[in-house]
Amino acid sequence: MLRRFALLLEYDGTGFVGWQRQGLGLSLQQVLEEAAAKLSDGPVASITAGRTDAGVHATGQVVHMDLQRDIAPEALVRALNYHMKPHAMVVRAAKIVSGNWNARFSALARHYRYVILNRAARPALDINRVWHLPTPLDAALMHSASQDLIGHHDFSSFRASSCQAKSPVRTLDHIAVARSGELITIVVEARSFLHHQVRNMAGTLKLIGEGRLAADAIPAILAARARAAAGPTAPPEGLCMTRVVYDPDPFYP
Amino acid sequence: MLRRFALLLEYDGTGFVGWQRQGLGLSLQQVLEEAAAKLSDGPVASITAGRTDAGVHATGQVVHMDLQRDIAPEALVRALNYHMKPHAMVVRAAKIVSGNWNARFSALARHYRYVILNRAARPALDINRVWHLPTPLDAALMHSASQDLIGHHDFSSFRASSCQAKSPVRTLDHIAVARSGELITIVVEARSFLHHQVRNMAGTLKLIGEGRLAADAIPAILAARARAAAGPTAPPEGLCMTRVVYDPDPFYP
Repeated sequence: MLRRFALLLEYDGTGFVGWQRQGLGLSLQQVLEEAAAKLSDGPVASITAGRTDAGVHATGQVVHMDLQRDIAPEALVRALNYHMKPHAMVVRAAKIVSGNWNARFSALARHYRYVILNRAARPALDINRVWHLPTPLDAALMHSASQDLIGHHDFSSFRASSCQAKSPVRTLDHIAVARSGELITIVVEARSFLHHQVRNMAGTLKLIGEGRLAADAIPAILAARARAAAGPTAPPEGLCMTRVVYDPDPFYP
Repeated sequence: MLRRFALLLEYDGTGFVGWQRQGLGLSLQQVLEEAAAKLSDGPVASITAGRTDAGVHATGQVVHMDLQRDIAPEALVRALNYHMKPHAMVVRAAKIVSGNWNARFSALARHYRYVILNRAARPALDINRVWHLPTPLDAALMHSASQDLIGHHDFSSFRASSCQAKSPVRTLDHIAVARSGELITIVVEARSFLHHQVRNMAGTLKLIGEGRLAADAIPAILAARARAAAGPTAPPEGLCMTRVVYDPDPFYP
């Protein structure tokens, strides 16, 4: 009996080539699918809500996979977590979903968090988890500037040249920038994002926080529809995929 | 000219033998003192507010050291952080203090945090930072039970056999246990702690949270004044030294 399982994943992206299998290096997809294959008669394919880049983390990634096996979700969690050892990825929860439920296409929204450590000293406890920026940033200014990104826009200026999406138009539902001590957190929500969109927005807001770009620069950057108009791509280690929203939602009923 | 500097330190204790120099393995003390020696004409000794064990972390450890050198505190921070690379320790801040100020003996209080990850799945992002306990714990019960630890007590039941303190009597000023999702955080404050006292309190509260020990068990455990009366020692990775309090305080004026 073929059953479709939705899986809620947490991983530390450090040292992986990213979600997707590639010619060289270890991918998160390979670690998960090889663990699943040990519970199945043959290879298992997984579909993900977001193919995170090398070094990007997740606390709320969602994938689905079909298994030729009658196994309780709790037992599947234990078995996959056992077989994925010692890799820095775990299944936090599993649910049986219908055969037409799709981790990628059923997703209504994706939430990401980008964290900046804004202090002179490099990180010791948060190595590989934050973007270290020693220059003091004005987080309030970054927040107010970020609000111009909200809405339905052509995000070509924030799109990687490698982006395979058909359209550069996306709708950003929410963005907020907040400082808590030495940490500045950027949270974003949209149905979907272009490749590197969040990191390119973070890299642009960083220039605004430093005062190197005006706080009202965003509308002109969007209008330029040219990657060179925006700031550089922020590094992957500050980025974390925190939630994928579905309705009904397998993990947040 | 001899100057005394107070240093505020952050470190990831994973892979170190602990604060103190020992025969085998790398200590945090050695990393700091060898970096300081590169800025001095000879060896530099440091005095710490707390000699944390192997695997224990810090965001607010404080030490002092005397340097035969006229160097601005900001320059000292940069130079030490440069020389301590790539080790997972940084100086967050430095201040010049008077020659009779002592990181250990001037300390009025020490604050620690102990973090438990309470979910089925092992940690992926918080490996080496939390105590993973898959059995559901009642954090509210742990909190109410913990309040019996507050005050002036003989803490022999929570004292490591290796403890070198002259007296087992300590005054616990504050303890609180709070759940936030999958994380349970125990915060404690006292002028000083016995060796393993925080980890032994955490290990005992864990038994109460599991229902394996009664919520009103603490007074009898204290009265027994015997290590065997309390729970096992919680592992070091959940523990973090978060603050040392002074008056006047070099880092939190």
